Amino acid sequence: MSQGLFPTWREAPADAETRGTVMLLRAGYVRKLGSGLYANLPLMQRTLQKLEALIRQELEGLGQEVSFPVLQPEQLWQESGRWAAYTQAESIMFTVRDRGGRQLALGPTHEEVAVVTVRDLIRSYRDLPLSVYQIGRKFRDELRPRFGLLRTREFTMKDGYSFHASPEDLHAHFEATADAYGRLLRRLGVEWRSVEADSGHIGGAESREFMVLSAVGEDEVLWTADGRYAANAERAVAGSVDVTPSPFVQRQRQHTPGAGTVAAACTLLGCKSAHMVKNLLYDAVVARSDGSLRVPVLVSLRGDHSVNPTKLWNAVQTRSRTWGGGTLISLDTAHSESWAQDQAAGLPLGYVGPDLPDTVLARRADVFPAFLRLCDGGAAALRNFATGANEPDWHLSGVNWGVDLACPEVTDLRQAQAGDPAVHDPAQMLQSARGIEVGHVFQLGTRYTTAMNATFAAADGTTQPLQMGCFGIGVTRLAQAIAEQLSDARGLVWPTCIAPYEVVLTIVDMSHAGQLAAATTLYGQLRAAGIDVLLDDRPVRAGAKFADADLLGVPYRVTLGRRLEGGEVEVHCRRSGEVRRLTLDNVVADLRVRLETPLA
Amino acid sequence: MSQGLFPTWREAPADAETRGTVMLLRAGYVRKLGSGLYANLPLMQRTLQKLEALIRQELEGLGQEVSFPVLQPEQLWQESGRWAAYTQAESIMFTVRDRGGRQLALGPTHEEVAVVTVRDLIRSYRDLPLSVYQIGRKFRDELRPRFGLLRTREFTMKDGYSFHASPEDLHAHFEATADAYGRLLRRLGVEWRSVEADSGHIGGAESREFMVLSAVGEDEVLWTADGRYAANAERAVAGSVDVTPSPFVQRQRQHTPGAGTVAAACTLLGCKSAHMVKNLLYDAVVARSDGSLRVPVLVSLRGDHSVNPTKLWNAVQTRSRTWGGGTLISLDTAHSESWAQDQAAGLPLGYVGPDLPDTVLARRADVFPAFLRLCDGGAAALRNFATGANEPDWHLSGVNWGVDLACPEVTDLRQAQAGDPAVHDPAQMLQSARGIEVGHVFQLGTRYTTAMNATFAAADGTTQPLQMGCFGIGVTRLAQAIAEQLSDARGLVWPTCIAPYEVVLTIVDMSHAGQLAAATTLYGQLRAAGIDVLLDDRPVRAGAKFADADLLGVPYRVTLGRRLEGGEVEVHCRRSGEVRRLTLDNVVADLRVRLETPLA
Repeated sequence: MSQGLFPTWREAPADAETRGTVMLLRAGYVRKLGSGLYANLPLMQRTLQKLEALIRQELEGLGQEVSFPVLQPEQLWQESGRWAAYTQAESIMFTVRDRGGRQLALGPTHEEVAVVTVRDLIRSYRDLPLSVYQIGRKFRDELRPRFGLLRTREFTMKDGYSFHASPEDLHAHFEATADAYGRLLRRLGVEWRSVEADSGHIGGAESREFMVLSAVGEDEVLWTADGRYAANAERAVAGSVDVTPSPFVQRQRQHTPGAGTVAAACTLLGCKSAHMVKNLLYDAVVARSDGSLRVPVLVSLRGDHSVNPTKLWNAVQTRSRTWGGGTLISLDTAHSESWAQDQAAGLPLGYVGPDLPDTVLARRADVFPAFLRLCDGGAAALRNFATGANEPDWHLSGVNWGVDLACPEVTDLRQAQAGDPAVHDPAQMLQSARGIEVGHVFQLGTRYTTAMNATFAAADGTTQPLQMGCFGIGVTRLAQAIAEQLSDARGLVWPTCIAPYEVVLTIVDMSHAGQLAAATTLYGQLRAAGIDVLLDDRPVRAGAKFADADLLGVPYRVTLGRRLEGGEVEVHCRRSGEVRRLTLDNVVADLRVRLETPLA
Repeated sequence: MSQGLFPTWREAPADAETRGTVMLLRAGYVRKLGSGLYANLPLMQRTLQKLEALIRQELEGLGQEVSFPVLQPEQLWQESGRWAAYTQAESIMFTVRDRGGRQLALGPTHEEVAVVTVRDLIRSYRDLPLSVYQIGRKFRDELRPRFGLLRTREFTMKDGYSFHASPEDLHAHFEATADAYGRLLRRLGVEWRSVEADSGHIGGAESREFMVLSAVGEDEVLWTADGRYAANAERAVAGSVDVTPSPFVQRQRQHTPGAGTVAAACTLLGCKSAHMVKNLLYDAVVARSDGSLRVPVLVSLRGDHSVNPTKLWNAVQTRSRTWGGGTLISLDTAHSESWAQDQAAGLPLGYVGPDLPDTVLARRADVFPAFLRLCDGGAAALRNFATGANEPDWHLSGVNWGVDLACPEVTDLRQAQAGDPAVHDPAQMLQSARGIEVGHVFQLGTRYTTAMNATFAAADGTTQPLQMGCFGIGVTRLAQAIAEQLSDARGLVWPTCIAPYEVVLTIVDMSHAGQLAAATTLYGQLRAAGIDVLLDDRPVRAGAKFADADLLGVPYRVTLGRRLEGGEVEVHCRRSGEVRRLTLDNVVADLRVRLETPLA
């Protein structure tokens, strides 16, 4: 330690937001270089390399390792149709122009590259399945880099891509990969969940996320105690809490002045919010080759429910044919300012009904002239409900779908919440936990291969698009997620399998020749035994060395101090806190056994 | 092989310019994704990982591994003063703007990041020396990506940075690292040279390059047979071939109509080109904070010598104080067009003398008003020479420095060539070879640490800038350089230590159950023995398998064919071509011995 780069600090920088970040900074694992940019110092590099080695082990037999360029020609993303989504929608993709003026993406993900790489190599079903993965840098122009390594602009990912002749084969590989991820997380000894997930911009059908549970996680996981359901809240579905019968028995126009909110209307109407259908206006902005277009969206929802923005985004994007195609760029609740002229012209904000006529849009040249109307299942199930009358200060009550007004297209748009009943068993209540997404597996199907014309000759002689899967682990993020969960007030508590060093030898008194000699001998013996050992030979007091050993999270500390006169050392276990005395000649054998039966 | 990604081709794409490129493409090691962008397929990934492991082994004890971000805030490069040189001079640096409009470099090199990372960690001489290295992606916006992996826009590099308390300690580390590079190249079994090198944009004092010799190398190496001198031609110095005594005995003005070239003038004057001083005009463009400036440069050179552009660039840049500082952006021979107006006004192109008056510049508002005058040592040594008379159609002969005209500042500007005598021993003649630069070690001194204020408290209590070194290996380029040198008409011939697989088992007849069974058993035995083995179980004819084994460059091929009936297999050595028959039960032991005593 006296010769290498092992800086430690008593305090972390003020902007370190989480315990994991604080400890990784204080223990000298990483240094911040700029917003969302970190240098990995030697300790972090060792931990990441061990983590990568574990990942390679668990993926053995599931694919071959490759390495794709970070720089990706724009043309590939135009082929897949994702250029607009990634450069405009969230604009999370860094792009660079070369000296010839051509644009290149700094890869946030590599589906396109994987497809073009294999599409000329796969001719027939005999070449399938084919699976490759890489471990390398990814880039995202994050809106708000934060939480240390959890949300950075540059990070290391394991990303794998597989190609299959059939959905069944894809599904089997998907499950095998998910099993491998589970094995990895079990070896790491963290508390985790695999959950149903939204596929986001990656697209495709089924996807599953792997969450390391942590209070600082940006994701909410909803799960049931019976173990039969777990989903990202972005995706989770819930049963409805039963509604008491509606107090309304027949259709009636009711004067509700100044009651433009659900709560106010319920008070005036004498009903519960669950008896109402609320109708929300959204502005969708869509990028098309001929420019951008605003599409008005009208969402009908039970009064006590709220909209799940992810579900709504997906519902709108998948209906792009309605207005002639294009990529959804933004989807925001319609601001009253942007509709002010319409309000003046009669748009009944606060009193909108599901049947708000398209004619309110007629004056707006920049807006698609018809609402995309969507209704959540909870609202669609209501009878004798109340809703806006499309006239300021007036509601309708006792209304029924199909009788008094047409029901819009029904789809699940609702945000499930802790406390909601589960769909599979209403007796199970959804519970909430925070999670850090460290892995995500996707059954993409033919979403990319069709767009990019990656086909194969099937056994029956037909030409078919390849079935594709993709599989990611956020390596840097996983390391910090472990640091978040496996740390205490004194520092990091690494699982043995990814600790940068397995053992630290602490010399109590550097001026004591016997201690120094015994430590040097033991250091050589442990190295010869294949144990990753660190020698704390710094000229600082023993208390500082003990504190640093705890901070660094080295699983075992061997203290060479006064007990050496009796031929003994102390072996301290970081995780359990247990301290044992051993004679010097037993140390190597003892540690070898303990390290071969790791705590985690 | 039937289950993985092992594509081979009979032909390489038409744009593959070198044998190494052809073989790496044909053998399925890499796929081209775009200009200067390649995907590493599984075979390449294995070779690169083995090469990286060798590099780590040889660097053991010379530094700790770290990993810096690819993205580097512009501010760092402004601090070191390199932003202009890298974004304008060669504009080889990709830059990207984040969503906040801030510029980031895609690191072509990491000196700045290394300095800012360590400058807060090093306080005193007790913290020194400190040495770190990383292996990762680098980016260059090449003017002309070419030669496969030799000149790409994205590549893998090992780059190391060391910090020292004294130039002596830096020098010792420099030599130790150079030794490690030498050991690496010897293990790889390639023919190589370490040569004196120009430090280019990296800066600093002494630097040395490691060249793998190859006809496709972009660099020229000049060396002597006695082994005492080797240098990049950009940097090489040479003695002069002796000049016969000048035919001119006294200063004379001679009419030389239409003799604006050295050759024509010599004919008219009756002398050799070595008796003349030629004077060349250059336009230097310099970037300064207040805009760009053109600086006229006048170079005097012996008539039979030519200018070394690298030496001239360095000579001009280091004299930037002459015109008030700034970064040299371009340096071109003055085009006649750009000087046409001057010529009309009396600039005697073709008849310029070393004493061309600055008054010829007076009319040009955009040009610094005085020539930077430089004279090569060869020209400075002449006596009674001929040169331009600063008047069209007239030369002066029998001229002497100090008598007839003032000698400009003397510096080495000459391009050394094969056939020139060596400086250290004129009996040694410089010889020329082409080389691929695979490594470069620099003694940077305080060039970065002074600019970036990275200091330490020395033992004598003073504050001093850190002494810095940097050390690079082009990992991807080294792999291809090996492929260039170690390949033949049939394919690659990898050294055992970086071959993707050490052994390939070739099943001659896939329909023969005995061959298949024996191969499967042997495959398991070789794997159990820790040997990297590939099983060629593809349903293709034996000839194609043999050809592919040669193309892939696997060091040993074990053929399981008809001889199995007698219990025998054939073991073929790719490099020597030797074929031996072995009984099946001897194969593992035999290969183990051969692989432990590698050919290279």
